Amino acid sequence: MKIYRYPERETWPDLVKRPVFKREEISGLIEEIFAAVEKDGDNALIQFNKKFDKAVTPEIAVSEVEWQNVENEIPEALKKAIRQAKENISKFHAAQITETEKIETTKGVTCWRESRAVEKVGIYIPGGTAPLFSTVLMLAVPANLAGCKEIILCTPPDSNGNINPAILFTAKLCGITKIFKTGGAQAIAAMTLGTVSIPKVYKIFGPGNQFVVAAKEYAQRYGVAIDMPAGPSEVLVIADSQAVPDFCAADLLSQAEHGSDSQVVFITTDLKIFTETIEAVEKQVAKLPRNEMARQALDHSLFILINSVEEALEFSNLYAPEHLILALEDFEKSIPMIENAGSVFLGNYSCESAGDYASGTNHTLPTNAYAKNYSGVSLDSFVKKITFQHLSREGLKNIGKTIEIMAEAEGLIAHKNAVSIRLK
Amino acid sequence: MKIYRYPERETWPDLVKRPVFKREEISGLIEEIFAAVEKDGDNALIQFNKKFDKAVTPEIAVSEVEWQNVENEIPEALKKAIRQAKENISKFHAAQITETEKIETTKGVTCWRESRAVEKVGIYIPGGTAPLFSTVLMLAVPANLAGCKEIILCTPPDSNGNINPAILFTAKLCGITKIFKTGGAQAIAAMTLGTVSIPKVYKIFGPGNQFVVAAKEYAQRYGVAIDMPAGPSEVLVIADSQAVPDFCAADLLSQAEHGSDSQVVFITTDLKIFTETIEAVEKQVAKLPRNEMARQALDHSLFILINSVEEALEFSNLYAPEHLILALEDFEKSIPMIENAGSVFLGNYSCESAGDYASGTNHTLPTNAYAKNYSGVSLDSFVKKITFQHLSREGLKNIGKTIEIMAEAEGLIAHKNAVSIRLK
Repeated sequence: MKIYRYPERETWPDLVKRPVFKREEISGLIEEIFAAVEKDGDNALIQFNKKFDKAVTPEIAVSEVEWQNVENEIPEALKKAIRQAKENISKFHAAQITETEKIETTKGVTCWRESRAVEKVGIYIPGGTAPLFSTVLMLAVPANLAGCKEIILCTPPDSNGNINPAILFTAKLCGITKIFKTGGAQAIAAMTLGTVSIPKVYKIFGPGNQFVVAAKEYAQRYGVAIDMPAGPSEVLVIADSQAVPDFCAADLLSQAEHGSDSQVVFITTDLKIFTETIEAVEKQVAKLPRNEMARQALDHSLFILINSVEEALEFSNLYAPEHLILALEDFEKSIPMIENAGSVFLGNYSCESAGDYASGTNHTLPTNAYAKNYSGVSLDSFVKKITFQHLSREGLKNIGKTIEIMAEAEGLIAHKNAVSIRLK
Repeated sequence: MKIYRYPERETWPDLVKRPVFKREEISGLIEEIFAAVEKDGDNALIQFNKKFDKAVTPEIAVSEVEWQNVENEIPEALKKAIRQAKENISKFHAAQITETEKIETTKGVTCWRESRAVEKVGIYIPGGTAPLFSTVLMLAVPANLAGCKEIILCTPPDSNGNINPAILFTAKLCGITKIFKTGGAQAIAAMTLGTVSIPKVYKIFGPGNQFVVAAKEYAQRYGVAIDMPAGPSEVLVIADSQAVPDFCAADLLSQAEHGSDSQVVFITTDLKIFTETIEAVEKQVAKLPRNEMARQALDHSLFILINSVEEALEFSNLYAPEHLILALEDFEKSIPMIENAGSVFLGNYSCESAGDYASGTNHTLPTNAYAKNYSGVSLDSFVKKITFQHLSREGLKNIGKTIEIMAEAEGLIAHKNAVSIRLK
């Protein structure tokens, strides 16, 4: 832990710095993987499964039998939990559907926007130790609400060539019918370029390791869009004297367990809470199954004692955390001061894991200070907004002169002509 | 012109292909420019002004005197036109401000989104033959409505070291107080890295040549966001028998005059309209001051005769045009069939130049088939949407079991603990 008591404001820019992601080192590998997938398609994916996942997968697509069996492999309690989470996520994202509002900007000139789903989207779900079926909900639910016509999912197989049943179950529950056994950069390449089995998509969503992140960045050269740039997960907790150290510690650790590069920041105005939260973290971390990873994350975590909640919020805005927890008595007062954050959790009972799983908000959020210029995933991420306009002859007459004068001043005479010829 | 009569559907994917942008050739130069600006700041910009714009600019910032004089340099009629355009653009974009709607997803669990402006934004306006003051309106108006705290503008000086007065006037009208004389990749580098004069921004907007486009792409490595990827401007016109060939030709040419790489596509179901529009194009192009550029664009333009409006719309969705004009009797019927387009112009009097200047819609739109996965610039481009949630103790109880079960199934025990410790 890095402990700071009333750090000088000049030191803040250094404190909020994130680890630098070295993309150069792996960019050659990413190019090779894209080239292999472009050349050999499904066969390349089968070879990569052998090489990287030690898996034999004669077929890349999940088979009918695998689909049918999945129901039996999930405990009822987990099914019920996933269903409740899905319901809340659906409720929250359905409220983001906007009505078309036509605006008559000048008499006879009517303009509006209409949403259209991104037709083909790809969801990437990492494999490994934590099977992130919750991320399937976070991406497939809004994709469905938006009306995406083709929603495909790629996730790496285990060493037996199988896909995690909870991922498969959740995908099925969300109506996804095309799941493919491929992971890492090769999965991103496949969704970007298309193979015989895997359709090419227009936008790729989902988290992943540094290879996946680099591949998503690279994929954009082919005209594919991505959800957002990525970085290690983060939480910043601001606590006052009424906070509960045990709760704060639990929240900090739920971030720390994600990985050794997780970013954990605790800021309080209260010395007692400061000391007790540090103690609580030490006590709780010992009992975690992933305690080694969590300890590594804690090594570079920041624990800051500060003069006021206002200062804490200023620091937070400079940091721009993915998750911001306000363990404050009067959290309402702080809301207008929040400028940069991915998702904000208010009061002592709004733990980050609520938003990670089941409250309804999306957990795909901007990290790495991207909360300064990016929003988290929402229904908006799955649609384009197209502008429409209709001008009557009268309408064109009402703004025609303005268009002609401006076009001429910009030296674009054909633009002017398009009006003049109509009003002649 | 490339003329196709009833082209086979199998040929469509080839027809909709765009020119490939060779980024490799200039990437070395972009890196050098960023390095120079990082090292020498304002001095580097002054040197680049000498080198690329043949301009002596002892100061990078526009001076007080320049600000004061600009009013006198603009004809009244142009001022009035710019003001009318600004009013319509303001009306249309103000309607995009969304109300906060709180959703109780489960009893005691309340979630909502709030918009926050991107604090610092940079607007790039190209210089050269066409001084795009209209683009100042399209970017500064929504930036102001969103509440961006710092809005800066960079544009190259002319050989006398001056900035185009119409650009300066429009910026002033929009309340922009920080304008800098720098263009090309070096302007993008300055806004990305910051110099003594030019503040570092979080998001960069605006059009430009291939160097600007490459620099915006490169800037993203530094954590800066950009409005959208770019490509040459495009229009696709769909016409039926009631269309007016002269109007269609004028619209096609208003696209063609942008540059030799402009993309122009005309599709009609009617042989007479087909022939007459081609004739009208030939006749009108001869009279244009920028006719050489327009002719080069026409050389690779597509004129397609097709069987039905439905087929034309299918082709258009595959092409995903920046601008789509429906010169159709029954354009209302076609609207639901439009999937991919930047901005759509309905009927015989909705010329593209209306949207380019004054109807109120934004003219910063996705080109190069990016209409498949990107929206044009809108108020949304200048804000982040932050999610908030408040759970009461009761609320956490109502979804606590679900969180615990899901977290455990994902192997994230600290996530589970954050709930358990609160409900104990």
